[in-house]
Amino acid sequence: MSKSQIVQEVENANAKYVASFGEKGKLALPPGRRFAVLTCMDARLDPAKYAGLAEGDAHVIRNAGGRASDDAIRSLVISYKLLGTKEFFVVHHTECGMVLFNSEIMGELLEKSLETAVHDGKGWKDVGKGPGSKEGQKVDWLTFTDDEKAVVEDVKRIRNHPLVPKSIPVYGYLYNVKTGKLKEISEATTVGRAGA
Amino acid sequence: MSKSQIVQEVENANAKYVASFGEKGKLALPPGRRFAVLTCMDARLDPAKYAGLAEGDAHVIRNAGGRASDDAIRSLVISYKLLGTKEFFVVHHTECGMVLFNSEIMGELLEKSLETAVHDGKGWKDVGKGPGSKEGQKVDWLTFTDDEKAVVEDVKRIRNHPLVPKSIPVYGYLYNVKTGKLKEISEATTVGRAGA
Repeated sequence: MSKSQIVQEVENANAKYVASFGEKGKLALPPGRRFAVLTCMDARLDPAKYAGLAEGDAHVIRNAGGRASDDAIRSLVISYKLLGTKEFFVVHHTECGMVLFNSEIMGELLEKSLETAVHDGKGWKDVGKGPGSKEGQKVDWLTFTDDEKAVVEDVKRIRNHPLVPKSIPVYGYLYNVKTGKLKEISEATTVGRAGA
Repeated sequence: MSKSQIVQEVENANAKYVASFGEKGKLALPPGRRFAVLTCMDARLDPAKYAGLAEGDAHVIRNAGGRASDDAIRSLVISYKLLGTKEFFVVHHTECGMVLFNSEIMGELLEKSLETAVHDGKGWKDVGKGPGSKEGQKVDWLTFTDDEKAVVEDVKRIRNHPLVPKSIPVYGYLYNVKTGKLKEISEATTVGRAGA
């Protein structure tokens, strides 16, 4: 099978990175700056750039929404317990795709077809014709309706988790995709906001 | 409360990023190059650098081990179903911390203390004195013993998942932390290897 254009591009970019790799092969396993960032998978976000990370500095955990899922907490616990991180950042962002649907909508869309749906600005239209699956109805898709409140919720979940020591500070931020700016979010800043 | 040194450094780095943000505020929500990367949280890995990603190009999902956990699959399904990605990369790496323990060891370490344990080259020593928790024994920590076989396992799990269309190619790679090089991994390349 011939390689796709994307595979060729990734492999070419990797060859350039290898050529300029320098001393990075000497980096140790534990993060040098002893912190971890939990953030969204969104393509517009580059945590190394928005937070100033070089290779070797910090753990970066990413999922849809930057949510404090059980799996994100699995990763954070490994991060501090075995690899010595001492501070956690939760960084969500403005205009996140997770506000555009909910678990009910996702379950219905996947039941109709596994192919990509289209959002017309008002709602989702499923243009796919392929087979669907009811499995999507069993999943909690971890959507939210208020970006700042979701940060607070996730910070709280991590802080209150039985496997997270009380000594680890957990900071909440919202990244603005229009400006690149990180805004600190605390429970106090979300008082009176609309949404969940 | 005064800000920690790390928080000050992150906020200073972010201010520089904002100052040079340019036209990135115009990027669209769906990934421009229509692919997603699932990789490890390891601090030595920078997927944007090793795979040549600019902001806006691709979804990046990261957890401890780069495992195809339920949460990683939640993210991948959102990636293709709602945001139109068409190819997935699974990228684990050499010298991963996930080969240094297993769920039994982790459960025991967390029961003794939540504080950071130390690896002396032979095994884990729990130097912490704080309170522990039995909750760690309920978690599947998703460790592995053979890095290449774990890539194959995760590629297969994604390919065979009922919510992932058969039309999406799933590529497996192992990143070498000594050289920065991505090595393609397929089931054929792991035949005869030791380990799980």
